[in-house]
Amino acid sequence: MTTHNENEWLRFRKEFKNSLSVESLFAGIRSGDRSVLSSAITLIESTVALDQEKANALIQHCIPVSGNSIRIGITGVPGVGKSTFIEQLGILLLTAGKKVAVLSIDPSSERSHGSILGDKTRMTQLASSSNAYIRPTASGNSLGGVAQRTRESIILCEAAGFDVILIETVGVGQSETAVNALTDFFLLLMLPVAGDELQGIKRGIMELADAVVITKADEMPEKSKNAVQTYQKALHLFPAKDSGWIPNVLSYSMFDSDSVKRVWNMIETFESQLVQSGFLEERRKEQSVYWMKESVKDMLWQHLLSQSSDFIEHIEKEVVLGKISPYMASQQIFNKLIGKK
Amino acid sequence: MTTHNENEWLRFRKEFKNSLSVESLFAGIRSGDRSVLSSAITLIESTVALDQEKANALIQHCIPVSGNSIRIGITGVPGVGKSTFIEQLGILLLTAGKKVAVLSIDPSSERSHGSILGDKTRMTQLASSSNAYIRPTASGNSLGGVAQRTRESIILCEAAGFDVILIETVGVGQSETAVNALTDFFLLLMLPVAGDELQGIKRGIMELADAVVITKADEMPEKSKNAVQTYQKALHLFPAKDSGWIPNVLSYSMFDSDSVKRVWNMIETFESQLVQSGFLEERRKEQSVYWMKESVKDMLWQHLLSQSSDFIEHIEKEVVLGKISPYMASQQIFNKLIGKK
Repeated sequence: MTTHNENEWLRFRKEFKNSLSVESLFAGIRSGDRSVLSSAITLIESTVALDQEKANALIQHCIPVSGNSIRIGITGVPGVGKSTFIEQLGILLLTAGKKVAVLSIDPSSERSHGSILGDKTRMTQLASSSNAYIRPTASGNSLGGVAQRTRESIILCEAAGFDVILIETVGVGQSETAVNALTDFFLLLMLPVAGDELQGIKRGIMELADAVVITKADEMPEKSKNAVQTYQKALHLFPAKDSGWIPNVLSYSMFDSDSVKRVWNMIETFESQLVQSGFLEERRKEQSVYWMKESVKDMLWQHLLSQSSDFIEHIEKEVVLGKISPYMASQQIFNKLIGKK
Repeated sequence: MTTHNENEWLRFRKEFKNSLSVESLFAGIRSGDRSVLSSAITLIESTVALDQEKANALIQHCIPVSGNSIRIGITGVPGVGKSTFIEQLGILLLTAGKKVAVLSIDPSSERSHGSILGDKTRMTQLASSSNAYIRPTASGNSLGGVAQRTRESIILCEAAGFDVILIETVGVGQSETAVNALTDFFLLLMLPVAGDELQGIKRGIMELADAVVITKADEMPEKSKNAVQTYQKALHLFPAKDSGWIPNVLSYSMFDSDSVKRVWNMIETFESQLVQSGFLEERRKEQSVYWMKESVKDMLWQHLLSQSSDFIEHIEKEVVLGKISPYMASQQIFNKLIGKK
C-alpha cells in the first residue's frame, strides 16, 4: 500500500514530468532515464492537441539519433510461450552488453483478455534490469494509430540508446502486417502442433515470417522435431523474400539455453547479410515512405468522415445494396470533399 | 490482308459503335452482342472525361442485372500451363451450357513480355464459341485503375449473361491481392516442382489460394503426386479461411479430361457451401465497401499529387533522408490540402 506521502510524491513527480520542456525530455531520454522515456511515450499516445505538438517536436529531436537498433517483430498466439522466450532472449542480450526494449502491441485486448497488458508479473527478471525497458501500448481501435505510436516509440527507444527493440503482438489481429512494415526481422513462434490442431493465428502471417521458432521442445520433443521439419518444408514452398533471405525454422526450449542462442545467432546472421547488401537501409526508407502515404490517406479519410459522415454512411449503404458502383460512390464522396457539385 | 472496302467497313462499324447511346449499348450488352460488349469495355478503359461519364451511366444501368456469375481468379507463372487449363475449363463449362468470359490482367506486361496480351493464338477453340468471350485488359501503371476496370468489366460481362467469369493474372505482380478482392474463388496453378526449383511467384499468393492445382501431371506423374502431398501438408499449416473453406490441392493433366472436371466440381462445392452460409453475399458487400474506400483514398492522393507534386516530392525526400518522421510529413501534406498553414 502506498502512504499519503508517497501518493503526494508520485503526483508531484507526474506533474513535474508533464511540465518538462521538449529539450528536457530529450536530454532525459538521451541520458537513458527510463521514467522520462515512459513520460515521452505517454505524450506520444496523448490525443490532446498541445501534447501532440510537443510530441512532434520531441520526435523531430530524436530522429537524427535514432535508427541504430535492430527492430524485431515477435508474434505468436497466447499460450505459445512468448513471454518466456522474450525474457530469455532479453536476458541473453543483456548479458552480451546490449540494451533491450520490449514494446507490446495488443489492439485486440478485448478478444485476448489483456494477455499482454493485464499480466503485470510477466518478464519480471528482464524488467528489473536497468538496461531493459518494457512497455505495453495503450490499445486502440485504429490500426494506423497503433502503428504510428509504435513507430514513434521505436524512435524514442533508439534515441535512449536501446540496441535491440522487440515488438510483440499476439498474432490474432490485423496488427502483424503493420508490425512487419515497422520491423527489420519478423519472428513467428509456433507450438509443435500443426494444421487442424492449431487454430487462432491469422492467415497471411506465415508468409511474413523471416523465421519460425517451434516452442516447447522440452515438453514434446518428438512433435517438436516433426514440426520443425514440416514447417521447414512448407517455408521452402514459398519463394525467397525480396531481401534474398531464406526463412529458417528452429526449435526452442526454455530449459535449453543454447536454443535461444541459436535464434539470436540467426538474427545476427540476417542483420549482417542485410546490412552488407544495403537492403536493410533500403527497406527502412521504403517503410518510411509507405507510412507517410498511408498516414496521409488515413488523415484524408478521417477528415472526410468528420466532415460528412452522414453522406458517406448513406453512400456506403447504396453500395452495399448494390445500387451504385463503388467507383461512382467514391467519385461522389471525392467531389464532395474538393467542393465540386 | 484487308481490302480498301473492308477497311472502310471496319472504320464505319467503329464510328457507329462510338456513337451508340448508353441505352443502345445497354441493349446490345443485354442481347449478348460480344462486339458491343467489347466497345463498352473500351469505353470503360478510356481516359477521356466524356467517355468516363458515359461509362459511369452504363455501369449504373448494368448493376441491377449483374452479380449472377461466379467470379474465379486464376493465377500462375508463365509456363505453368494457364492457357491450356483455362481453355479446357472453358470448354467444359460451354458443354455444360454455361457462358464463359475470360478477363486477362497483366499490369506488368513489360516484364512478362506480353505473355497474356501478345499471344493472339491462345485459346483459339474457346474464342471461337459464341458463348465465350475473351478480353485482355489494357495494361497500365496504376493497380487501382486496373482493379477498377476489371471490376467494371465483370459487371458488364454479367449484364451480358456470362455465368462464369475467369480473371487471369500472371502471378508475378502486385495484382493478385487486388484480384483476390475482386473474386469469389482464387485458384493458384503450380508446376510440380517446389522450393528452390520454383521461383517467380510472388510471396503472399499461397495464402490467398482457395485451391492449388498442380499442372503437368502427365509429364511428371511422380513429381506431381509428391507436389500434391507437399502442398496439401503446407496448406494444412495455415488456419482455415474466414469463409470456413479449407483450401484444396488437386492435380491436372491436359490429357485427362477428368482432372479439369474435378477442379470444376470443387469450385461448385465451394459455391454451394458459401451461398448457403450467406458468406458469398457478405463477402461481395465487403469487397464493394473496400473498393469504395480504396478508391476515395486513391483519388485524394492523386488529387494531392496533381496539386502539389513538387511539395510532396520534397517532403518525401526529407522522409527518405530521415530528416522528418513519416507522420510529421503526412501532417504537412494534409495541412497543405485542406488549406491550413
